[in-house]
Amino acid sequence: MSQVTLLQIADKLKISVSTVSKALKDYPDVSEKTKALVKELATTLNYKPNAFAVNLRTKESKTIGLIIPAIVHHFFSNVIKGILTQAEKKGYLVIILQSNESYELEKKQIDLLLRQRVDGILISIANSTRNFGHLSDVLSQGKPLVMFDKIAKILECSKVVIDDRKAARDATQHLIDTGCKRIAHFRGPLLSQNSIDRFIGYREALENNNYVYDSDLVYICECGDSSFEEGKINAKKLVQKHKDVDGVFINTDLVAIGALTAFSEMGVRVPDDISVVGFSNWFMSSVISPSLTTINQPGYKIGKAAFKQLYTELKQRKNNLPVVHKKITLNTELIKRASTKV
Amino acid sequence: MSQVTLLQIADKLKISVSTVSKALKDYPDVSEKTKALVKELATTLNYKPNAFAVNLRTKESKTIGLIIPAIVHHFFSNVIKGILTQAEKKGYLVIILQSNESYELEKKQIDLLLRQRVDGILISIANSTRNFGHLSDVLSQGKPLVMFDKIAKILECSKVVIDDRKAARDATQHLIDTGCKRIAHFRGPLLSQNSIDRFIGYREALENNNYVYDSDLVYICECGDSSFEEGKINAKKLVQKHKDVDGVFINTDLVAIGALTAFSEMGVRVPDDISVVGFSNWFMSSVISPSLTTINQPGYKIGKAAFKQLYTELKQRKNNLPVVHKKITLNTELIKRASTKV
Repeated sequence: MSQVTLLQIADKLKISVSTVSKALKDYPDVSEKTKALVKELATTLNYKPNAFAVNLRTKESKTIGLIIPAIVHHFFSNVIKGILTQAEKKGYLVIILQSNESYELEKKQIDLLLRQRVDGILISIANSTRNFGHLSDVLSQGKPLVMFDKIAKILECSKVVIDDRKAARDATQHLIDTGCKRIAHFRGPLLSQNSIDRFIGYREALENNNYVYDSDLVYICECGDSSFEEGKINAKKLVQKHKDVDGVFINTDLVAIGALTAFSEMGVRVPDDISVVGFSNWFMSSVISPSLTTINQPGYKIGKAAFKQLYTELKQRKNNLPVVHKKITLNTELIKRASTKV
Repeated sequence: MSQVTLLQIADKLKISVSTVSKALKDYPDVSEKTKALVKELATTLNYKPNAFAVNLRTKESKTIGLIIPAIVHHFFSNVIKGILTQAEKKGYLVIILQSNESYELEKKQIDLLLRQRVDGILISIANSTRNFGHLSDVLSQGKPLVMFDKIAKILECSKVVIDDRKAARDATQHLIDTGCKRIAHFRGPLLSQNSIDRFIGYREALENNNYVYDSDLVYICECGDSSFEEGKINAKKLVQKHKDVDGVFINTDLVAIGALTAFSEMGVRVPDDISVVGFSNWFMSSVISPSLTTINQPGYKIGKAAFKQLYTELKQRKNNLPVVHKKITLNTELIKRASTKV
C-alpha cells in the first residue's frame, strides 16, 4: 500500500477532492456530516498531508540545512546535538551535510540546500573557504544564514562564536602563571579565522608578560585538518629542536592528545618537563593520563544559540519585521587538570 | 531579493509560464530563439528549480531520514559519516534525528519523516522501543526501511549488523586465553537486542571452556544509556563484592573507560589485578592509559552498507522489480592492547 492521497479519499466517498481538502481544514462551507465522514476515513486510512503540497502553499518547508566540516568530532557532535534539540522543540527538521573542509563541496551543498527550499542555513565553514559568494547567495535570496565557530568576519549575517583571542590568552597566561619560561604554540591551518585568533591571543599573552615572541616556536598544522597524528609529528619536532621549551599551548584537544602520546613515547614527562594546554575540552581529555588542561568551548550551547537566532530571523521575515543580525559571543573557561603544574 | 520563480521569468519576457517551463526542459514545441532567451534570463537571475514542485511531479524527494539514539557517540558519528559519504555520491540529502533512546520520540520522528515524504528511512532503534507499529507503517506505505546496529529481529526489512554473539565470544575467549579464571560481564540495557546477544556470547564462551556461569558476576546498565559513570559505579561494586574476579568483558568502550578510571582511583592494577576488554573501538580507547583491548565495530562501513542497501531497494521499487530484503553481517575483530595480558 502506498501513501493515501486526497483523491483516494474523494473516490471512496464519491465527493470532490476540493471538498475533501476543505473538510480536513474545517472550512465553513462543508457540512458537519461530510467533515465527520472525511475525517473518519482519513484516520482509518492513516492519511498524512503531503508536506510538499503544503510547502508549495505556505512557502515554508520547515526544514533547515546544516553544514559542518566534520561529523566525527566531539565539538561538532555537541553542536549538532544542541541544534537538533532546539529544532525538535520548534518543529523543524535538519538536513545535515559534511563539507570535509572542502570549499568546492561546501559550495555544492549550499546550492543543493537552496534547491531543496530549506527555510534557512546554519554553517561552520571549511578551512579552505576563502570566497563567500555562495553564502552571499543565501542572504540575497532572503534566507537567514547563521554562522558558528568557523565564520567569515567579512559576511553580514548573524554569528555565534566564542572569544578565541581571550580564550587563547587565558590558556597561555595559565602556562606563564604556573612557571613556564619558553612557551611554544601548535596552531591550526594558516587561514582559518579561529586559528588566527588563537595565535594572536597567544602572542598577546606573551607580550602582556614581557616574554619574547619567537616565531620558531610556532608550529603550523600542515595537513589542513587538526589531527592526532599532527600533534605527534609536531611534538617530536619540538623535542628535537627546542629542548628548552617547557610549555606548549595547542590549538585543539585532539592535536594536544597526539602530542601527549608522543611526549610519553619519548620519555618527556608532562608537566615536569613540559606543560600542555589544549583547546575545546573534548570528553577524552578528562580521561587520558595525564588529564589535559584545556579551554572549555561550549559546543552544545553554541548549537542551541545558533538555531535560536535562525528561528528569530525566520519569525522576523515572516512577520515582515526588519531582520536584525546579531553576533553572539559565548563564554569559555579554563579547565585546570594534570597536564599543567599547580 | 527572494527566490526567482517561473512567473517572474515569464513576466519579464512577456510569455506564458508554461512556455518558460517547457523552454527550460527543452520541449520541442518551443522555438530555439525562445529557449535561448529563457535560459539566458534564468542564468542571469540565478533561477533554481523548485524542489517541491519537482517532487510533486516525480514523487521522489531525494531526501532520506536517519534516526539514531545519540549524536555525541563515537560509533554513531562514524555511522553517520558513512551514510553521508554514500548519500552525497548518489545525490541524496539526509535529515538526521536523534531519538535520545526514547520510543515516544522515535515514533513521532517516523511520523514527521513520512509527512516530509522522505524516500526511505535508516534507523538504529532506541533501547526503550518494544513496539514496532511505527516501523511497520513505513514498510506498509511502500517506503524502504533499513535497520542497523540496534535492530528489531521480528521486523521484515533489511538489516546491517555485526555478529554480536561471535564478537562477545571472541572478547571473552581472549580473557580466558590470557589466564583469567573468574570473569565478570558489564552488560547493556536488559531489552536491547545487541546487549542480549553480547551477554549470550559471554555465556557461550564460558560454557565452551567449562567455566561456571555465575549470574552474580553480571552487572546490568541501570540508567538505560551506557555511560562513563555507569562504568565507574559498576567497577566499584565489583571490587567491593568480588575480589576474586580477574577479568571483565564490558558491553561498550565508554563504560569500559569509566571502569578503567575507577580501577585506577581504587589502586586496582590493570591488567595485573584485573584484565578488561571493551566493545566498539572508540578512538579514545587507543590513547588512554592503559590502552583498551576491544572489539572493533566498523561504524563507517555499517553506515555505507546501510545506505547502499536502501539505495538498492529504492531502485528496485522504481523499476517495479521485486524488493529483496537483505541481512548484511559485517566482520568484527579483536584489537589487543594493554588492558589485557599477553
